[in-house]
Amino acid sequence: MIDYKLLEALATVIETGGFERAGEALGLSQSAVSQRIKALEIRLGQPVLIRHPQLAPTPAGRQLLNHYQQVQLLERDLRNALPTLDAASPRMRIAINADSLATWWAGTVADLCRDEGLLLDLVIEDQDVGLKRLRDGEVAACLCASDQPIAGARCVPLGTMVYHPYATPAYIARHFPDGPTETAFRHAPAIVYGPHDQLQHRFLAQCGYHGAFPYHLCPSSEGFVRLATAGIGYGMMPRRQVAELEDAGRLASLAPSHCLEVPLYWHFWRHSGALLERLTSALGEVQLT
Amino acid sequence: MIDYKLLEALATVIETGGFERAGEALGLSQSAVSQRIKALEIRLGQPVLIRHPQLAPTPAGRQLLNHYQQVQLLERDLRNALPTLDAASPRMRIAINADSLATWWAGTVADLCRDEGLLLDLVIEDQDVGLKRLRDGEVAACLCASDQPIAGARCVPLGTMVYHPYATPAYIARHFPDGPTETAFRHAPAIVYGPHDQLQHRFLAQCGYHGAFPYHLCPSSEGFVRLATAGIGYGMMPRRQVAELEDAGRLASLAPSHCLEVPLYWHFWRHSGALLERLTSALGEVQLT
Repeated sequence: MIDYKLLEALATVIETGGFERAGEALGLSQSAVSQRIKALEIRLGQPVLIRHPQLAPTPAGRQLLNHYQQVQLLERDLRNALPTLDAASPRMRIAINADSLATWWAGTVADLCRDEGLLLDLVIEDQDVGLKRLRDGEVAACLCASDQPIAGARCVPLGTMVYHPYATPAYIARHFPDGPTETAFRHAPAIVYGPHDQLQHRFLAQCGYHGAFPYHLCPSSEGFVRLATAGIGYGMMPRRQVAELEDAGRLASLAPSHCLEVPLYWHFWRHSGALLERLTSALGEVQLT
Repeated sequence: MIDYKLLEALATVIETGGFERAGEALGLSQSAVSQRIKALEIRLGQPVLIRHPQLAPTPAGRQLLNHYQQVQLLERDLRNALPTLDAASPRMRIAINADSLATWWAGTVADLCRDEGLLLDLVIEDQDVGLKRLRDGEVAACLCASDQPIAGARCVPLGTMVYHPYATPAYIARHFPDGPTETAFRHAPAIVYGPHDQLQHRFLAQCGYHGAFPYHLCPSSEGFVRLATAGIGYGMMPRRQVAELEDAGRLASLAPSHCLEVPLYWHFWRHSGALLERLTSALGEVQLT
């Protein structure tokens, strides 16, 4: 049997970002936490943590963390069946795309969090990257744009988010006086979420433009909308997120005949217990647009 | 003289997150990009990139990137003086706390972005971590809660953001029927931004509570507000961000006599050129509350 105190130490070090904080969270000294990590590494015969450039699990450490999370979820089901066991809630680690978190996610999971005492540990990833986190064992579930199932996990389609190229009317008048032309795209600053965000490139390709373009980088869904609303750039945003701003005339599409559909899929480890099944049921009823 | 083509290759690999994408951005083959990185490492006698677990600069690579960014900013001033030089905009890399980006930032810098053609590369960090990025040479400037100056950088105070513990009225009635008591704090799920977020702990300490408490982790300013508004938890939010929700009765403070003041400081490298000076002037006029 694995010594779960050791796995708990590893999980807490990663969650809190340091040995000292982990010690505080666990009511242990920093050196006691170090000793537990060391004991785990001796037992395993390989490192579980990378110390530099920042604290992160090794691939072996990730597998341990994933296992630890699955055991915690299963324990939770057991506690429901045996309420005299102590009632600590598990925290469920989920990778999610920022735009879902900024729009429909909270309303969909609120009842379940309240009724089941579920605590969330949300990790934000671009649509195309979250799945890697699941495969690496860093999260119990992942909401992303890929429909590629991975071994041991289930994949449930949730529907489609629809993105339009929004900017302020003044920005559109200034940078796109003749509509979405090649000249305009070459000079008008766009807003891109991050290096893995391909929406802007897909939109430009759809418009027949394949050249370079200036862009701001802004890895925040809310910041993205704020930059666009301040007239700093244009970018792909879900209609659902900016509906009020569009209806108030503060944002408009600069190419109304173009939009991008991004399908979303819910991937989760099988055999992770009843709570994850119930969360999946709740997500199955969501309306994304 | 340094071969800036090599530094450009390094900066593009980091910015795009890969050799193939960097090649696309630079109009080079992937192998040409690799050769440039290798040439840089041979010249330097040490690695500039860590390949695993993910692509990141080594400490030496970071210093090169910082230098490259400063040179770009200085070149920009030169181009203003000599307009016949080509007019490519530099991208300015700035570490910023999520709550500033979600509230006042865009409105404050919009005119400068438009008038100067400035492109932003925003990196989101908790108030207490961004400064490390500046010290490591990863960013040209940093907006954070620390007033500790670092060698070679200037530090300008911008004012104070005021945080209150918000939740829905229904959540408060359910979890805090007797106000902010020890029993309530022990059981009511909070929302915490991330491992480095100490606001929740500081608020609880201010209320005289030092025990454990259940919490969700949500590293998104917008997601944070959504979770609170859906009744999933309570958390520390700037009044400025949720003023409309508070006025509409959808969020309220669960401890109206308690709030936290978070001072913000703007740190930036000296001698980085006129554009950064102008950005600093624009920030000097901001009203944070």
